[in-house]
Amino acid sequence: VSSIAIRFENGKLELLDQQQLPHQEIWVDATHPDNMESCIKQLKVRGAPLIGVAAALCLGEWARSGVSEDEFKVAAQKLRKSRPTAVNLMLAIDRLTAMEFDAEKVFLEAQKIYEEDQQLCDRIAENGSKLIEDGDNIITHCNTGGLATAGVGTALGVIRKAWEQGKRIHVCVDETRPLLQGGRLTTWELEKLGIPYTLICDNMAASLMAAGKINKAIVGSDRIALNGDFANKIGTYGLAVHCYYHRIPFFVAAPVTTIDGECESGQQIPIEERNDFEVRGVKTFAGDVEWAPSESEVYNPAFDVTPSELVSQWILDTGNYSLVDIRENALKELV
Amino acid sequence: VSSIAIRFENGKLELLDQQQLPHQEIWVDATHPDNMESCIKQLKVRGAPLIGVAAALCLGEWARSGVSEDEFKVAAQKLRKSRPTAVNLMLAIDRLTAMEFDAEKVFLEAQKIYEEDQQLCDRIAENGSKLIEDGDNIITHCNTGGLATAGVGTALGVIRKAWEQGKRIHVCVDETRPLLQGGRLTTWELEKLGIPYTLICDNMAASLMAAGKINKAIVGSDRIALNGDFANKIGTYGLAVHCYYHRIPFFVAAPVTTIDGECESGQQIPIEERNDFEVRGVKTFAGDVEWAPSESEVYNPAFDVTPSELVSQWILDTGNYSLVDIRENALKELV
Repeated sequence: VSSIAIRFENGKLELLDQQQLPHQEIWVDATHPDNMESCIKQLKVRGAPLIGVAAALCLGEWARSGVSEDEFKVAAQKLRKSRPTAVNLMLAIDRLTAMEFDAEKVFLEAQKIYEEDQQLCDRIAENGSKLIEDGDNIITHCNTGGLATAGVGTALGVIRKAWEQGKRIHVCVDETRPLLQGGRLTTWELEKLGIPYTLICDNMAASLMAAGKINKAIVGSDRIALNGDFANKIGTYGLAVHCYYHRIPFFVAAPVTTIDGECESGQQIPIEERNDFEVRGVKTFAGDVEWAPSESEVYNPAFDVTPSELVSQWILDTGNYSLVDIRENALKELV
Repeated sequence: VSSIAIRFENGKLELLDQQQLPHQEIWVDATHPDNMESCIKQLKVRGAPLIGVAAALCLGEWARSGVSEDEFKVAAQKLRKSRPTAVNLMLAIDRLTAMEFDAEKVFLEAQKIYEEDQQLCDRIAENGSKLIEDGDNIITHCNTGGLATAGVGTALGVIRKAWEQGKRIHVCVDETRPLLQGGRLTTWELEKLGIPYTLICDNMAASLMAAGKINKAIVGSDRIALNGDFANKIGTYGLAVHCYYHRIPFFVAAPVTTIDGECESGQQIPIEERNDFEVRGVKTFAGDVEWAPSESEVYNPAFDVTPSELVSQWILDTGNYSLVDIRENALKELV
């Protein structure tokens, strides 16, 4: 098992510490579920699909390490709660806990979850790349590539695939405050891939759109409701509104596992609120800076919800879906 | 002469170094035009009206210090070019250079420019406060208060006035990347004034609007074209689009001196582009952090242009104007 973000060899599971990117590539041990839990909470590992795969591999190894069924279930429950909005995480863990508790079988199922995620990414990239044309100038938000999944990624995987097909594209990268996944991680991935890009602050996108310098947008998703509404990194909804106003196609790319069959609409998606200090400043590998008064009241939602009417196409591993398809219950038929 | 941002006593002109706020209150000497020029370029003094007043006071004192008319004009031209988008700066300087070169008269005229700015602010605040109601939740962008003008401010002056009238309001403060004038300066001013506020990242505004938690927006302006289009801090246009989509009234507050009589529409307003490192990280009193790959290509416009059709009211010192007024050439009649 190995991707740009996970290494799993001889019973040792390591994660590339994404808080240290792009300046340092440091691998941290996440073999023990307690370590995995803190890696998830501290965003050392992030991206809904990657979190699910990483937690599954961790539990598979934990099962094989000789723990009792009770110990296994305690660890599973703890990991399941470590990131409330990530439905992939819950699905992956439920899949392992629903099985008969047989260490070797649980371990193999976890491997399967990993391989499936890679295949899902490949299919999403293949489907999405049909919507990308030579000369496109594509804006993206947050990080949705090999650092967010076990494979090529979702939204960024689509961009990568289009580039590998020889389409001359340019990417506009939202820095994605407060945690700067765009500025730190998407830039790092695009540098590695050699795809031309321009980094901007989130509040610059609208003026580039008005100037005709962006003609497509593609983002990932942490959870998709049955009516097509979806949760993604804070700022996605604002970007969708800007695209709508400027008549720019807005795509969301995600695996079918991101669809939450229990969730009829976006209003039912819980939004995690994070620590105030993330907004009062930045905390990075390169140092911490707090620039706002320390007594400032802050609002810091990790996600927002984009309603289906702002989405042009849902790019899933099973195909591309229009709003008409969604209204005709395409997502319900997939879960 | 004294405001929260300028001190001028016994021939010594000092500016509150706004790069050090909110954590340190440091006054820097800007008596010599060379010092003033570097303060403007380094954003130690900022805000279109305040820059104009500060440069005028500096030139007034420079004239009185015994320089020749040539030396005076060289300094005037240098200051005039130090911030290309600030029309107030050019107007203030042109006013002093158009006069007969008499040191005492130039000095008194500079004082007058300062006093006029204070009065302009008071009138804007009075006019704008009529549009603010008890219970309003108002979003603002950048800094437009006592740190941006010689008086109570423009957009923030309106908010302050409404608060002093006893209206219970709440302010939502955009942090305003990349230079964080909202997160550093507007928060500092609101703390001093005791007005309740919440600091957010720029990309969080839209989701607050969707949740019904913002019902008005008010911003300042660096330059207003005759057709009502206006330039303001990058991110203003995106905020205006979000307000339009959510049917939230969007106000711009500025003195008449901000209107550029040479500028028919927003398309003619030049947009200054600033250094790449501002987007790759932050540079503040509390330290510098660069989080993006140092080879990243960056787009960093200082301003954007908001077209008149997104504006609900223009709040000027001469009154409040609707889009109908603007279409009927209200601004042309003022210049």
